[in-house]
Amino acid sequence: MGFSVDDKKLKRAGLDYWEYLDITYYKGLADFFSRNPDGKFYYFTTKGQNVYTQVNYPENCFLVFGREDAGLPEELLFQNPDTCVRLPMGTGIRSLNLSNTVAVAVYETLRQWNFPELSGAGNLTRFRWEDASHG
Amino acid sequence: MGFSVDDKKLKRAGLDYWEYLDITYYKGLADFFSRNPDGKFYYFTTKGQNVYTQVNYPENCFLVFGREDAGLPEELLFQNPDTCVRLPMGTGIRSLNLSNTVAVAVYETLRQWNFPELSGAGNLTRFRWEDASHG
Repeated sequence: MGFSVDDKKLKRAGLDYWEYLDITYYKGLADFFSRNPDGKFYYFTTKGQNVYTQVNYPENCFLVFGREDAGLPEELLFQNPDTCVRLPMGTGIRSLNLSNTVAVAVYETLRQWNFPELSGAGNLTRFRWEDASHG
Repeated sequence: MGFSVDDKKLKRAGLDYWEYLDITYYKGLADFFSRNPDGKFYYFTTKGQNVYTQVNYPENCFLVFGREDAGLPEELLFQNPDTCVRLPMGTGIRSLNLSNTVAVAVYETLRQWNFPELSGAGNLTRFRWEDASHG
């Protein structure tokens, strides 16, 4: 991953949400693929030839990201041309940072799935939306 | 904003891309609105009643975000119920961080606009996509 999940700063940054995570650790790519033999995998990479919004993400698929500093191995990408996806970017830009890339990828997938079990409406604390005037 | 653009860490984090930015500074919300009298504004807030993907973002619109620690003023939200938009989230979650929220919002807008002037395809460095086998 390029970082340790035991890192104190990481734990502090994610403190409120750590309990909601369901993490599985793998020894590496070979272990990951052998333990998910029926998995559908989408590889997020600046090197991809497919725009990430033009793919339909099936239920239970895996969104696969590389290390911030190195990306995914080229052999892996080359073997999976149809499932390598890219976030469109300006040509002068190397890449978005990993955190933002994951956020965009996850929310595109959730958008396609119509945001299952997520709440799409919030409330004010000092006013009530029912009292607001619509333009 | 809740942070200084003169901050050394910020400059270092954005070093490669700083030159691509076109930043306008305002003295505050009143100044911002008075200098953009014909602007179309979308307010990103966990308190919104509209899902951010169900809005059609017009060309040259403004995506407005609050400070990481405080969000946008409730008076402003209450006056604009139809253009307050929310990223769907689990009910136990306070909010996504600001950076991720901006990334998701910007890429949804770009998706609706079909990613103008952005490149949707990249290249391998050690292989050629033309040589890859499609499944």
